[in-house]
Amino acid sequence: MHLFDKETYINRRQKLKSEIKDGLLLFIGNEEASFNYPANTYAFRQDSNFLYFFGLDLYNLVGVIDVDADKDYIFGNDVDIDDIIWMGPQPSIKDMSAKVGISNSDTLTNLETLLSDAIKEGRKIHFLPPYRGEHKLQLSGLLGMKPCSVKDYVSLELIRGVVKIREIKEEVEIAEIEKAVDIAYEMHTTSMRMAAKPGRVEREIAGTIEGISLAMGGPVSFPIILSVHGETLHNHHHDNTIELGQMMVTDGGAETTMHYASDITRTVPVGGKFNDRQKAVYQSVLDANVKAIEAIKPGIEYREIHFLAAKVLVEGLIKAGIMKGDVQAAVDAEAHTLFMPHGLGHQMGLDVHDMEGLGEDNVGYNEKTVRSKNFGTAYLRLGKELKPGFVLTVEPGCYFIPALIDKWKAENKHSDFINYDVVETYKDFGGIRIEDDILVTETGYRVLGKPIPKTIEEVEAVMANPL
Amino acid sequence: MHLFDKETYINRRQKLKSEIKDGLLLFIGNEEASFNYPANTYAFRQDSNFLYFFGLDLYNLVGVIDVDADKDYIFGNDVDIDDIIWMGPQPSIKDMSAKVGISNSDTLTNLETLLSDAIKEGRKIHFLPPYRGEHKLQLSGLLGMKPCSVKDYVSLELIRGVVKIREIKEEVEIAEIEKAVDIAYEMHTTSMRMAAKPGRVEREIAGTIEGISLAMGGPVSFPIILSVHGETLHNHHHDNTIELGQMMVTDGGAETTMHYASDITRTVPVGGKFNDRQKAVYQSVLDANVKAIEAIKPGIEYREIHFLAAKVLVEGLIKAGIMKGDVQAAVDAEAHTLFMPHGLGHQMGLDVHDMEGLGEDNVGYNEKTVRSKNFGTAYLRLGKELKPGFVLTVEPGCYFIPALIDKWKAENKHSDFINYDVVETYKDFGGIRIEDDILVTETGYRVLGKPIPKTIEEVEAVMANPL
Repeated sequence: MHLFDKETYINRRQKLKSEIKDGLLLFIGNEEASFNYPANTYAFRQDSNFLYFFGLDLYNLVGVIDVDADKDYIFGNDVDIDDIIWMGPQPSIKDMSAKVGISNSDTLTNLETLLSDAIKEGRKIHFLPPYRGEHKLQLSGLLGMKPCSVKDYVSLELIRGVVKIREIKEEVEIAEIEKAVDIAYEMHTTSMRMAAKPGRVEREIAGTIEGISLAMGGPVSFPIILSVHGETLHNHHHDNTIELGQMMVTDGGAETTMHYASDITRTVPVGGKFNDRQKAVYQSVLDANVKAIEAIKPGIEYREIHFLAAKVLVEGLIKAGIMKGDVQAAVDAEAHTLFMPHGLGHQMGLDVHDMEGLGEDNVGYNEKTVRSKNFGTAYLRLGKELKPGFVLTVEPGCYFIPALIDKWKAENKHSDFINYDVVETYKDFGGIRIEDDILVTETGYRVLGKPIPKTIEEVEAVMANPL
Repeated sequence: MHLFDKETYINRRQKLKSEIKDGLLLFIGNEEASFNYPANTYAFRQDSNFLYFFGLDLYNLVGVIDVDADKDYIFGNDVDIDDIIWMGPQPSIKDMSAKVGISNSDTLTNLETLLSDAIKEGRKIHFLPPYRGEHKLQLSGLLGMKPCSVKDYVSLELIRGVVKIREIKEEVEIAEIEKAVDIAYEMHTTSMRMAAKPGRVEREIAGTIEGISLAMGGPVSFPIILSVHGETLHNHHHDNTIELGQMMVTDGGAETTMHYASDITRTVPVGGKFNDRQKAVYQSVLDANVKAIEAIKPGIEYREIHFLAAKVLVEGLIKAGIMKGDVQAAVDAEAHTLFMPHGLGHQMGLDVHDMEGLGEDNVGYNEKTVRSKNFGTAYLRLGKELKPGFVLTVEPGCYFIPALIDKWKAENKHSDFINYDVVETYKDFGGIRIEDDILVTETGYRVLGKPIPKTIEEVEAVMANPL
């Protein structure tokens, strides 16, 4: 089991207690998740909130924090001889709990007693939104509510407390995220070198780089997007043969053994050399990526940086003849969302979209910054003011999505800013996205991990050594 | 989407209809499974029964067979423009259904109507056991029963019909399984060559060979077991550094793009050369593997082959001085279960333990062959008579499990057959398992796929080329 020192977990729980007025805080650890039958499971992934406050990377554990009594508990069942034969010797729940600074451990049956007593006493039981069917069923059983009603009793007070603490990354966390980016360095340079050889199937590359993540750390932090059809934003199919003239998007990241994520995107020309059309669009996206990163500092709203990136992108697209008119007016009209119908980035940590399960708006927005409802901009996950200790992604993109182009063209949408005749000739272009992981520092920003090649020259240099 | 021709699916459904007297057969396809928050999902795995009868490898579909009206349906919702941006253009439910020979397709809302009408008319609705929380919740919603009661309404008639059909593998299925074994060939020879270099961490090897599976086909067919502590039968931790003098077990298999499985185990000496103690135990397990395979033919109960393997193993362990006394008497007393506390094998197909979700006893046993309740032997998943077309694993093993040795020794259990003084000296040995995938033919057996090195000489030859 990979753990930080116990003070880390004690401190985190102490901070949380000071955020919540009263009651019991209930953290259900994950169960194993079945793949195609009960005993055949996906790789185990502990719940991130459980990991953050209780550290133990094992299934069927429940953590409880009694805010009123200032007591922390771990509940779980010890193993028997049959379990030892199949799973090996396991430390006792008591010994594991001690490693994360908890002296109160007990069985799951006694958790039921604790909770039913608390319910009888009318105490508040705070819990976070469940995201697996098993969670819903377990909460329903423990708290005596219908599975479909569980969501109505989620604690917004607990959500806000958790977000406030988790979004400021500790030094030990930043070190883990840098490790995750370093794994992504190996994944992406391998992907580039493999893309230098046209004729192979995407799966071969995607599988190989997922293997790198598994070999060097944990699983991938999200399903790898690797496609010569990058215009499909979340393309998880890897059946295309890669061919000269295509751009190949690789959006992939790793988890470390401690389950911290990286999330990096690079886009490269199959074969290893950019043609002129590819260069122009690529440079526009790269400029947007670089200028956005350079603008990061505490106190600025991320929404501002999103629109700055959009502006840089539009400047490039005007130069390429794809867009036209006044840059600022085009961005104000959100005409760029034809080409970049998504947000500039999101927070990242134990989850690749950090804490997304607590509600995107609870993480990325606040009372001062309300989420847009407009097409494209609505997908901006992080809009609020940045603070030192935030870790976030910067991932501008430019895509030529035939179905969307046809729709806008038919509606004559933003034709003041879009040269539809030119855009038509780009329908076979695919898409480009360039993404890095950034720490907000006291004075500005730091790009995390070993720098991964991204200029045209750097990418072509890596691809000059095909794999 | 990877599919067989539509006649394959039409024929399978036709066969199933002839097995079930009346009613509606309800097959819930899988939803996406969440990893650490709702939108971050594990690699999608379709339900195997849905795949077998309806073929479509996509989430949120439901198949229905109306036995009385001889009508087959697919229910699902078509995508909108937002889905196209994120997921790419998708064929309509109607077009997909046509590819598997189904002309009746409709929305999920209309499925609810169909089912509630059927319930009102008092028609029987057959369904299979759910194995994900989401399944239970979906069945509960569709059929108006409590999630915890769903299991009480599972159809044994449907289970029996499905097992009868799925356990006889078609030619197209056997071809897929051979492809899966061929992927395992690459995984295992790579693992052997990497184990030739002591000092690396297991994770590096496990991750690399999982990458091979992903690059060549689908995901791994089950979480890879790769450990220098092979005495832990299902060891999914890969944190040990491999060292000279240790045996390393690799139990791993791949899925093809059509989701057919392989399941292969090899055990090799770290560094590449067996020492004498390792040779003796290894040869005992190998002899058990080979003799068991050679005994496979239609009409024989697999339980008999299990005990034949046990006998061969005991002969070897007596020769090594680990056991003593009369071979047959030791096996009759089940003294061998100290060393092999598991069964010889199981059926394999779309699931690595084929159809295990339908109940092990419904798949591996029948009215003529009842499952043992004895320690070790109870883990034999397949006991019944073999038929041509069965695909199964043969996987004898020999383990030195310290906790189990201590327990039996303290109880003086089977001391007529076990030299505990000698066994004590093997407590650091680890474990050995050797596993192949076998087709039962009309006259005997066929080992599937490209032969994977397993004799001492073959293994040492592969390991002479370290990676």
